[in-house]
Amino acid sequence: MEHPEAASATPVRFETHPSRYVHWKLEVAAPVARLVMDIEEERPLRPGYTLKTNSYDLGVDIELADAIARLRFEHPEVRVVVISSGKDRIFCSGANIYMLGSSTHAFKVNFCKFTNETRLALEDASQHSGLKAIAAVNGACAGGGYELALACDEILLVDDASSAVSLPEVPLLAVLPGTGGLTRVVDKRKVRRDLADVFSSLGEGVKGKRAVQWRLVDEAIPLSKFASRVPERAAALAAGAPARSGPGVVLAPLEGRYDDRGVQHRYVTLAIDAATRVGEITVRAPESDEPADAAGMRERGSELWALRAFRELDDVLLDLRFNRPEIGVLVLKTRGEAARVLAVDAALLAQQDDGFVSEVLHHMKRVLKRLDVTARSLLAIVDEGSCFAGSLLELAFAADRSYMLAQDDGPEIAFSALNGGALPMANGLSRLATRFLGEPRKAEPPVGESFDAESALAEGYVTFAPDDIDWEDEVRLAIEERATISPDALTGMEANLRFAGPETMETKIFGRLSAWQNWIFQRPNAVGEKGALTLYGKPERAKFNWSRT
Amino acid sequence: MEHPEAASATPVRFETHPSRYVHWKLEVAAPVARLVMDIEEERPLRPGYTLKTNSYDLGVDIELADAIARLRFEHPEVRVVVISSGKDRIFCSGANIYMLGSSTHAFKVNFCKFTNETRLALEDASQHSGLKAIAAVNGACAGGGYELALACDEILLVDDASSAVSLPEVPLLAVLPGTGGLTRVVDKRKVRRDLADVFSSLGEGVKGKRAVQWRLVDEAIPLSKFASRVPERAAALAAGAPARSGPGVVLAPLEGRYDDRGVQHRYVTLAIDAATRVGEITVRAPESDEPADAAGMRERGSELWALRAFRELDDVLLDLRFNRPEIGVLVLKTRGEAARVLAVDAALLAQQDDGFVSEVLHHMKRVLKRLDVTARSLLAIVDEGSCFAGSLLELAFAADRSYMLAQDDGPEIAFSALNGGALPMANGLSRLATRFLGEPRKAEPPVGESFDAESALAEGYVTFAPDDIDWEDEVRLAIEERATISPDALTGMEANLRFAGPETMETKIFGRLSAWQNWIFQRPNAVGEKGALTLYGKPERAKFNWSRT
Repeated sequence: MEHPEAASATPVRFETHPSRYVHWKLEVAAPVARLVMDIEEERPLRPGYTLKTNSYDLGVDIELADAIARLRFEHPEVRVVVISSGKDRIFCSGANIYMLGSSTHAFKVNFCKFTNETRLALEDASQHSGLKAIAAVNGACAGGGYELALACDEILLVDDASSAVSLPEVPLLAVLPGTGGLTRVVDKRKVRRDLADVFSSLGEGVKGKRAVQWRLVDEAIPLSKFASRVPERAAALAAGAPARSGPGVVLAPLEGRYDDRGVQHRYVTLAIDAATRVGEITVRAPESDEPADAAGMRERGSELWALRAFRELDDVLLDLRFNRPEIGVLVLKTRGEAARVLAVDAALLAQQDDGFVSEVLHHMKRVLKRLDVTARSLLAIVDEGSCFAGSLLELAFAADRSYMLAQDDGPEIAFSALNGGALPMANGLSRLATRFLGEPRKAEPPVGESFDAESALAEGYVTFAPDDIDWEDEVRLAIEERATISPDALTGMEANLRFAGPETMETKIFGRLSAWQNWIFQRPNAVGEKGALTLYGKPERAKFNWSRT
Repeated sequence: MEHPEAASATPVRFETHPSRYVHWKLEVAAPVARLVMDIEEERPLRPGYTLKTNSYDLGVDIELADAIARLRFEHPEVRVVVISSGKDRIFCSGANIYMLGSSTHAFKVNFCKFTNETRLALEDASQHSGLKAIAAVNGACAGGGYELALACDEILLVDDASSAVSLPEVPLLAVLPGTGGLTRVVDKRKVRRDLADVFSSLGEGVKGKRAVQWRLVDEAIPLSKFASRVPERAAALAAGAPARSGPGVVLAPLEGRYDDRGVQHRYVTLAIDAATRVGEITVRAPESDEPADAAGMRERGSELWALRAFRELDDVLLDLRFNRPEIGVLVLKTRGEAARVLAVDAALLAQQDDGFVSEVLHHMKRVLKRLDVTARSLLAIVDEGSCFAGSLLELAFAADRSYMLAQDDGPEIAFSALNGGALPMANGLSRLATRFLGEPRKAEPPVGESFDAESALAEGYVTFAPDDIDWEDEVRLAIEERATISPDALTGMEANLRFAGPETMETKIFGRLSAWQNWIFQRPNAVGEKGALTLYGKPERAKFNWSRT
């Protein structure tokens, strides 16, 4: 039986802190940090299942995402994080099957998306912060456990009689290793496709030297040497990792207010209209001038507008995904002084060699990527009082469409250098370059220029520019019409139209792999009464319809 | 109500001839050919629906695929094909909705795959044979009709009060324009993503000048000038297209024998074991020496081994997809003299400047691509008497795994230059390059070398090499085990593992777009009792579950 949608249960909250972690321990001994997964099996996010054999649910992953963010912002002295298990002879057995089997389709899909984003965050930290990750696999490492290891730079496997890495989803559960597993095996680790096929259809996995030969792990280490070899590799990786400039900046709690009508943060507000299934997200510009030098920005810390506003936006997007599944259209608005946003962008770019400033920029990038893969229709409304400028203009370019009010002294949009590629999409291109695949010269933003509705429309920066007579009706109709279309068809359409151009491992994970997994998550062979996911752990065996599709 | 699986109905046959076309007319007046779609609405492939408003079903597309193949082989004097409609004021209204609504999930998925392959064949002809295509859109052009136009090099739209191009699937049917539509709009025609969003969510489509401005069509032509402008553009394209060397080579019927136990062709046999759900495909090498020069090959015509054997393989793959849905594992075998296959490959490569020989090579490539996207598990068995050499070795590299018998004087595999990139996968790489993404130096085939099981295993050319004592048990167990796994999970796994490395428009269509469409084809909002696809044409309106996933 499926449990009710999250919306009607206790809402999920995404803020946490190491002092409140239930399932992870974060131990910092610079230049190495240890992140120890030691799941409390009796404390699942929701009642109804126990987290046996170091298996995880969304609650576990929320803590992991928090830990990665804190390592980047709060611990620049850390250059390597070792991810290990606090259990004996087991690293991690992956996502909890009973949790998956009892979840709604929408929850399963959103859970997988969040775990995918978290693993990509680990890789982003490695690539852009030089924060390298080692998976110290001290025991059985199955399914999502191995997918977590795959997101690390190195996988060290204990070589004993029993410890294996495995992806048993296909043979045991009739679903895919959908948290990047299949994609990372062949695309990141470049495992030969036939060996990947054998590996992914073998329940028991691969051990020891064979796991190294097949490129599934980097080293297989005898148990007697494992405890000394892991810190040795960590030290070696740390020595090669670029220095990160300190000191750390603490991420203070956001302290948002949440209720049925929406979310109130300092800079970002979500207002829900349940009747029309529309959510209005408003992002406000800084209320006064922000610091222009790195020292001033560090002093402001997590109250810095560029960090706080984007953390708030991130929180609102996650709240929408998990707690408000029926909100189909997100109206994106901005309010405040465009000049202040442009000044922020210029300062960030000028100071980007500072470690903290660099983290702020990469954080903005990741939040915008979260917006890009949010399965809701996004309509940007460029109206009176708005400030779609620079980094906030990215919201309009992330939107499926934009409407800009055309009137004398009406709103303008403005570009900063950040529109030029510092905030790339998952496909590796800026939103501007993706938008103008057919007119490549327009990929270069006209930095410093502003455009009113007429000129923005002529240049192709906005979709429509109704005048003040038509404005209200046209915008209202667009929102209403969008909210009447099948939510599934819209999800599929948006997933295909938003990512034109080149593909990366990241777009493959969100496009190809996730789409196939979503398909399988609907198939009776997995989730039907006699499906393998449904019957997992029960004595009865799954019954399949053998038709190949 | 869904109609029964094809297997229990009249089997679908894929061979046809212009003299037997029901729905198309092929008129050749070199250098231009006209392909006129004039659907006989009372002659659907199966009873139960009528093909109104020039809508198509699989039967219509089988004729189109045949016409494209014949233009390439039989009419090298043709340099431009103009695709138009024989109906007044309507070009094509796309796939027949009642056919889709009454089809099984497996049939819908396979129908879309075949239509995708046919549209890609049109683009392949343009790119590799210089056979350019013009869509002369003389009226309403909706859904799959516009997707067909998108596969052409130019789209000419009549500019009258009513004729529009449209993709109404999302708003009207709650499914995607899944025959490449969404992908080609943004990736091929590079329509701006927000305009693509508006276009794809508007039932009524876009007309005239706006269609040109949005890059949806190349020209909007007043009705009074349409009849003269189309041949003008055809002549201009023909003048720019490369000459193709003649004369044409007629494609003779294959005359296979089909029954419940399989298919018998001259070089390719399919043997079905219904109890284990395994199909064994055996491809035989030429029985005597094949001609080595272009003149000799042309004389042999469609009896040339390289053409006939791969046409037969193509036919068997389509027969499996549509008529034998429960066959989950395909065992790929070869028989005959490897030396003859290697000689064929060498001759083809040496003579590839000849138009006919070039067509033969591109045909082999497309058949192997059809194998790559066939949703059945592929196991290559390199046993006694086999000839996995050169172009036939591609079968082993297309397989999910390969087993090679290790014994004294046992089978060998051998490479030809064709393994080096003349038969690329949809991702643009050779199968060897895809296989060895992690060892790029191995992408270059060791032309002229042979490998026994031990050395093939050591080099990574085969997956397993059991000796003669273990051989039978190991192969039997592998096949049996594979046949017990959920067919859906295998389809998803194989679709992700087969295409490592770069992405192309083609891989995006088969990976991302098709996977999302398959998901949507399972969703109650489309196919449930109150789903939009189910209720199309009925007075009752669709009822949606509004949860966004």
